[in-house]
Amino acid sequence: MTLPFLTPLDVPTLRAQGVPAPFVFGQADRVRFHELDVLDHVNNARYLSWFETFRIAYLRAYGISDYAGERPVLVLKSVSVDYNAPLHLDDAYIVAGRTRAFRNTSWTMEYGVFAGGRLCASSEAVIVLMESDFVTRKRLPARYTRAFIDRDGARFEG
Amino acid sequence: MTLPFLTPLDVPTLRAQGVPAPFVFGQADRVRFHELDVLDHVNNARYLSWFETFRIAYLRAYGISDYAGERPVLVLKSVSVDYNAPLHLDDAYIVAGRTRAFRNTSWTMEYGVFAGGRLCASSEAVIVLMESDFVTRKRLPARYTRAFIDRDGARFEG
Amino acid sequence: MTLPFLTPLDVPTLRAQGVPAPFVFGQADRVRFHELDVLDHVNNARYLSWFETFRIAYLRAYGISDYAGERPVLVLKSVSVDYNAPLHLDDAYIVAGRTRAFRNTSWTMEYGVFAGGRLCASSEAVIVLMESDFVTRKRLPARYTRAFIDRDGARFEG
Amino acid sequence: MTLPFLTPLDVPTLRAQGVPAPFVFGQADRVRFHELDVLDHVNNARYLSWFETFRIAYLRAYGISDYAGERPVLVLKSVSVDYNAPLHLDDAYIVAGRTRAFRNTSWTMEYGVFAGGRLCASSEAVIVLMESDFVTRKRLPARYTRAFIDRDGARFEG
Repeated sequence: MTLPFLTPLDVPTLRAQGVPAPFVFGQADRVRFHELDVLDHVNNARYLSWFETFRIAYLRAYGISDYAGERPVLVLKSVSVDYNAPLHLDDAYIVAGRTRAFRNTSWTMEYGVFAGGRLCASSEAVIVLMESDFVTRKRLPARYTRAFIDRDGARFEG
Repeated sequence: MTLPFLTPLDVPTLRAQGVPAPFVFGQADRVRFHELDVLDHVNNARYLSWFETFRIAYLRAYGISDYAGERPVLVLKSVSVDYNAPLHLDDAYIVAGRTRAFRNTSWTMEYGVFAGGRLCASSEAVIVLMESDFVTRKRLPARYTRAFIDRDGARFEG
Repeated sequence: MTLPFLTPLDVPTLRAQGVPAPFVFGQADRVRFHELDVLDHVNNARYLSWFETFRIAYLRAYGISDYAGERPVLVLKSVSVDYNAPLHLDDAYIVAGRTRAFRNTSWTMEYGVFAGGRLCASSEAVIVLMESDFVTRKRLPARYTRAFIDRDGARFEG
Repeated sequence: MTLPFLTPLDVPTLRAQGVPAPFVFGQADRVRFHELDVLDHVNNARYLSWFETFRIAYLRAYGISDYAGERPVLVLKSVSVDYNAPLHLDDAYIVAGRTRAFRNTSWTMEYGVFAGGRLCASSEAVIVLMESDFVTRKRLPARYTRAFIDRDGARFEG
């Protein structure tokens, strides 16, 4: 099958590609030469860029920000990654992700990188919403939390 | 229209997207957040990575190397880029390219980056084929030069 | 004071720069323009590259590998980062790190990024030593574990 | 000798390191693991980042901008690089550069990358000064052109 790249995938496609519930959002991409390191697999740092790219697609698709005019100021508070299997040149992969929980000014996402029907890496990140001064935490607007709850089944962890 | 990403585009699609002759090969991609710099446009260095990604797709599509088993040792001898218009977050763009000329052990490619029907950057690069010692120049096999001539109309510049 | 860059710092220098015990190894570097993202601070993914650079200096300084001839095959199993304070253009920073614990074929390092006497980020990573097939785990040679114990006070966590 | 890294080098040091006239400004740095590609040498695209890093040090050292408050809006118009010899892990190298010529709103720099007393790459770039709208070209202030003339012997090419 031909997988559409850089485009939100629907749930049947995700499942057909081996992305399990509760993930309902994902995008496919392909490994590029410059993402490899000397060991000939994707360098570990690149995954953080992939999750970053994913996040923007996610925020758009969930109606949280169109990233066209003013962009939300999102700051990564923490991130962890488990690497299960390496990825190689031209591998097609899917990054899937969801919001697992949220607080007043931050939320916790989990991500998976899938290739060939296999979970190659998993990750969790805490993201803080900031005012445009980059310093003051901003309360998550209802369009964030409603999307987190309605689409991802996220829980409030006040 | 929806442009297929990360997949060779046929000539009618290239022309419909504003990629002119003599280009007959191109691929679409989308600008990612991590490719932007502080000025909020794609950083200049990224274009070299795009041309590198393009080259591998090109060598595959032209039947020169499948990049699966042994890879050819290609070394960039020189490159030049002219930046005409900046690219921004999530812009869809096409990298098109062709081989303009070749010598015994090297060839000259030209590239264009097109977005919204406009030439945003153009580039030229000289690539040398090396033996697996990375030092000795290797004569271009016939499957290289035949593809350069037949598909791109490249000239021999002995 | 002028901090020597890209060179192992001795313990008095580390302490004078605000790097606390038990860290006994660190190197200074400076933030480059291309490490910034649109938010004008160092992009999160870069820290993983910094820890990678640090690791090689560490393995050299600890007499584990000179990275000159054959290099050890090290695979990151997992990594986590906490971001406390952003870094900006031309900031001088120190990456300090140590091995906290080890097992038969892997070890756990902790890292800190310090700037202006302040802990800006902290991290932990599990690294696995592989045979040259990249697949089979390799028992840590004694020159690894002895250095981990003698210099960093690492514990064996069989 | 120990070369000070990430710090402007004086002319005698440059000459002792094999950086010839007319270069009078340069900085040393060291190749990092993440700058290597699968071929185990520094990836071609990285050199553009090195020249970018150099440019900021240059503008600071020449008293053109301190990059502390408002930054000048510099846009690369074109760049070319010739790669003469590859660089490898942990190689110490010097990027030297100067302004060769200038016009009303732009100037032309040339760069060299030197390692082990050898010219490993050379480059030329045209940089345009923009107003803060990123679109309108801005006339080079006298502190630019005076520094270009006095320190680099640059010529006006109206």
